[in-house]
Amino acid sequence: MKIIFLPDNKTVETDGSESVLSAASKAGVIIDGNCGGAGTCGKCKVQVTDGSQKGFHLACRLFPEGDMTVQVPQYSESLKRKSEMSSLMRGLSANSGFEKRAAEPEKALLEDQKSDEERLKAALFPKGGGEIASSLLGELQTVMGGAVTVTATVRGKEIIHIEEGDKSGECYGLSFDVGTTTVVGMLVNLISGEVIGMEAEANPQAAHGADVISRIMFAGESRENLKLMQSEIVKCLNRIAEGLAGTHGVSMGHIYDSVVAGNTTMSHLLLGVDPKRLALVPFTPVFCEAARMKAGEFGLKINRMADVTLLPNIAGHVGSDITAGIVASGIIEKRGNHLLIDVGTNGEIVLCADGRAVCCSTAAGPAFEGASIYQGMRAASGAIERVDITENGVSIRVIGGKKPSGICGSGIIDAVSELFKAGLIDRTGKLFTREKALEKGIAAELAGRLRDGKTGREFVLAYIDDADDVAITQKDIREVQLAKAAMRAGIGLLMKEFGLAEKDLQYVYIAGAFGNHIRTESAVGIGLIPDIGEEKILYIGNAAGIGAVMALLSLEARGHAKETAKKIRHIELAVDPSFQEVYLAAMAF
Amino acid sequence: MKIIFLPDNKTVETDGSESVLSAASKAGVIIDGNCGGAGTCGKCKVQVTDGSQKGFHLACRLFPEGDMTVQVPQYSESLKRKSEMSSLMRGLSANSGFEKRAAEPEKALLEDQKSDEERLKAALFPKGGGEIASSLLGELQTVMGGAVTVTATVRGKEIIHIEEGDKSGECYGLSFDVGTTTVVGMLVNLISGEVIGMEAEANPQAAHGADVISRIMFAGESRENLKLMQSEIVKCLNRIAEGLAGTHGVSMGHIYDSVVAGNTTMSHLLLGVDPKRLALVPFTPVFCEAARMKAGEFGLKINRMADVTLLPNIAGHVGSDITAGIVASGIIEKRGNHLLIDVGTNGEIVLCADGRAVCCSTAAGPAFEGASIYQGMRAASGAIERVDITENGVSIRVIGGKKPSGICGSGIIDAVSELFKAGLIDRTGKLFTREKALEKGIAAELAGRLRDGKTGREFVLAYIDDADDVAITQKDIREVQLAKAAMRAGIGLLMKEFGLAEKDLQYVYIAGAFGNHIRTESAVGIGLIPDIGEEKILYIGNAAGIGAVMALLSLEARGHAKETAKKIRHIELAVDPSFQEVYLAAMAF
Repeated sequence: MKIIFLPDNKTVETDGSESVLSAASKAGVIIDGNCGGAGTCGKCKVQVTDGSQKGFHLACRLFPEGDMTVQVPQYSESLKRKSEMSSLMRGLSANSGFEKRAAEPEKALLEDQKSDEERLKAALFPKGGGEIASSLLGELQTVMGGAVTVTATVRGKEIIHIEEGDKSGECYGLSFDVGTTTVVGMLVNLISGEVIGMEAEANPQAAHGADVISRIMFAGESRENLKLMQSEIVKCLNRIAEGLAGTHGVSMGHIYDSVVAGNTTMSHLLLGVDPKRLALVPFTPVFCEAARMKAGEFGLKINRMADVTLLPNIAGHVGSDITAGIVASGIIEKRGNHLLIDVGTNGEIVLCADGRAVCCSTAAGPAFEGASIYQGMRAASGAIERVDITENGVSIRVIGGKKPSGICGSGIIDAVSELFKAGLIDRTGKLFTREKALEKGIAAELAGRLRDGKTGREFVLAYIDDADDVAITQKDIREVQLAKAAMRAGIGLLMKEFGLAEKDLQYVYIAGAFGNHIRTESAVGIGLIPDIGEEKILYIGNAAGIGAVMALLSLEARGHAKETAKKIRHIELAVDPSFQEVYLAAMAF
Repeated sequence: MKIIFLPDNKTVETDGSESVLSAASKAGVIIDGNCGGAGTCGKCKVQVTDGSQKGFHLACRLFPEGDMTVQVPQYSESLKRKSEMSSLMRGLSANSGFEKRAAEPEKALLEDQKSDEERLKAALFPKGGGEIASSLLGELQTVMGGAVTVTATVRGKEIIHIEEGDKSGECYGLSFDVGTTTVVGMLVNLISGEVIGMEAEANPQAAHGADVISRIMFAGESRENLKLMQSEIVKCLNRIAEGLAGTHGVSMGHIYDSVVAGNTTMSHLLLGVDPKRLALVPFTPVFCEAARMKAGEFGLKINRMADVTLLPNIAGHVGSDITAGIVASGIIEKRGNHLLIDVGTNGEIVLCADGRAVCCSTAAGPAFEGASIYQGMRAASGAIERVDITENGVSIRVIGGKKPSGICGSGIIDAVSELFKAGLIDRTGKLFTREKALEKGIAAELAGRLRDGKTGREFVLAYIDDADDVAITQKDIREVQLAKAAMRAGIGLLMKEFGLAEKDLQYVYIAGAFGNHIRTESAVGIGLIPDIGEEKILYIGNAAGIGAVMALLSLEARGHAKETAKKIRHIELAVDPSFQEVYLAAMAF
């Protein structure tokens, strides 16, 4: 049977034995929901628009009886974007340090009074070695009292789980990319390296502020606030973990490891460490190096012997998500000069030149996420995500194919770039009046869209009715200019550190959900990305998530993350005397 | 000022600034009590019999105003015996793996955004290295936010505690010897190696049975019973820890390590592991190897980063107390042939021959602890602890100097040995009738003490009045014979393993509280100890406690304990075909 998921238009084959939720996850289609397929949260509601089972259903309770078309609800859209590209990781070879061994220990004898521990170890490690964690001795007693076959989970040389019967196939890990806005979790088979599923949820801390600064302020108000935010994010990770485990029929007790990437503020909040000094000069983090603790101590309800590892941060505003992105891109190991740009809520830039590396962060993000834009919105259903302006008029593409209700990051960049190309704004970013546009020979269809709106001059992208028209304003254009100037100034100063010019760059890597949806032509058009030729610009998707999975699956990658974070030099743009000058120069188109 | 403690007759000098409880602990005088000097438990009541402050006082609240004589209550007597000889350990050189470092970290800079963690590590480890446990990051934030001087506690390469100010002198550890009957704790300075104090308490599990078998039965009845016994012993360790910390002005947070020795059943109960199979053939322990866990996980309220290490057991009925005893005696490393005998509730025997080692356990103990003796009692006030029989009559020594109310282990051995010497029993252990004794020329004073008592023939050691007379019965003598035969059969079979005779032994080491109080002459007299000359019989006191302190203070000693437990071969007497024969032969005097 064939299921078509809309609006992604992704098709998956299924034999009817699995739920639509499970089939969606396999296809990389994210459906919201957090009861792990128990049918209790009611969040995974989908609409079957074609097929014999038409109507609204819980995806976790819907088993297809024939071909069907399924409309996935709108909210899932923006989450999906965050977790795209993870199919890149399928088939990464695993060297996680974990293995499962099944064995049949000898029976106890009066003549030779070996302990249960000793006989189990002898069966598992005929050549010697192995240690059993003391907290497992109770289970050891139970299992060795009855079972013939015993399966042990071994991490390095340490036995961390003991089970009756042969369970050698069940060995999983979880990676998390904890963004300020979205949290993405992936369930991975630690032996085969296969990514089994992924699930995303909005970061629940957003209730206390959309950006890191407002979260830092909230956390700083009281010890209770700090504890609350920690508990919220840990609960979120648990919901995602339980969701993934439920959907894919994996026991939480068979999840033996977890790796988390996130920005420095998220890292602090995850550990319940007050990030207040990240908002104050000189932006001192409490810690940067990788943090590791027992899952139980952290509060993640996977196997109690599992570790939770937070990848290392680089500086107060360059977090472990960037470390993970560098690991995923591999640019620090490559010969030549490579630029990595991650535009999320903040904009982080990394330049690697034959193994040397510098980085900086800029306050570029909010505009590109729609935050400081008049009719800006997240990349959710109803957002204009693409704009084309020709003499014949304006054509737009709206997420979900519906009536537009706002504009998201990629739409804004498209709009500004197209306005400039069409001659509707000048090099300084000034939007012409309708009269001036007609004077300069702009087609009436376009000039007619210039008008005085509530916030000043604006250009109408979509007419709905007067109140609901979606327009881009002069102020929006200024915001884009400020943001792109910050990014370009950051890029410029990093290049100066190594005495490089744009032509010296081998590749520019664009990471992040945003990167996946912008048009290179438009990003280059407004000057956000260096103009080094489209073939040299690589979109690597959710690099932080990929890097976290790599660190989960490979001890080498984990070591590599540690070295990377140490090796990379952070540059504070604010203290560079030439920053202001470079920044202003980068404002123009 | 001078304080004399009775009945120990120990004298200590003090300047009046410390309580009598504290002064007693320094002198090695054990006073019961478990509120750590808070004045709330009321258990440390003592009587000042001489001096200006005559009367009853709480020792923790009594500060001497002049010379005084203090009578320590009776109950403490039997505890004291357990913890004697630990003064042997004073001045052991320490290599515990712990150090404390005070440093002044650099201030944070905008130009060079080092994390708190990085700056602290740079100050502590100028040559690099060091790791901070993730669960300390909250404290790191607090301390680095304000303090100029920071003190870190370092275990190996790991920073486990961070404090404001210079606290480099405060670094302590605890050792515990968990006996079936008595639990002894010692507080040790991990840097200087000094034993600062010791405290003992009766094992609270005794409420569920005096011996290991009855405890195993109780634990096996339900999961709740098992949990109860674990919680009882952990609470007991906490009371001792808090008592020691309170008495000596040490913060519980400055206690960074803990080592525990105990028999195999106690080890299982400490970890909440059901020991049921230790009471069933083939006596399989769940674990023998050393167990290590975080203090928090274990429930010990010392520094939360501290470990609790249980020393390795050897077999189901040869526990880590014996491992510790071997470490303390050093016999496994010595050239020549050495025998170690520990007579506690059980009797364990170890034979080392040029580094090879075998051991066994026997059910010898109960009689020597007064358990199966008609008027037997523990070594507490009122117990006859010494018996001399001459033609002129019987002289006895009573613990506490009072009216005798029973007889303890050393008194029983003395009595049987003296009875045999005086010709009142024959080689088979048969007590003569009064008539037969007179016939054989025994003095009338002695022969008159032979009579028919409630349980059969008996010999009166002390006349009180008819009902309260303390006597040794024919049945008591049989019990002693059975016990000593078991010990001697065990010794004989171990010697046979290596083809040795008694004359080949360099030394016999007697460990345990019991050992400290028996007369060599009597023990050899009844044949409990090989007759190899008094100068070759060494009493090493609380060897388990000493070994535990050594393991606490020295990583080498800890490693040595691990190797010892692995190296030593356990012999199950019951399966040796010649045991019965050797056992019966050892019954005669």
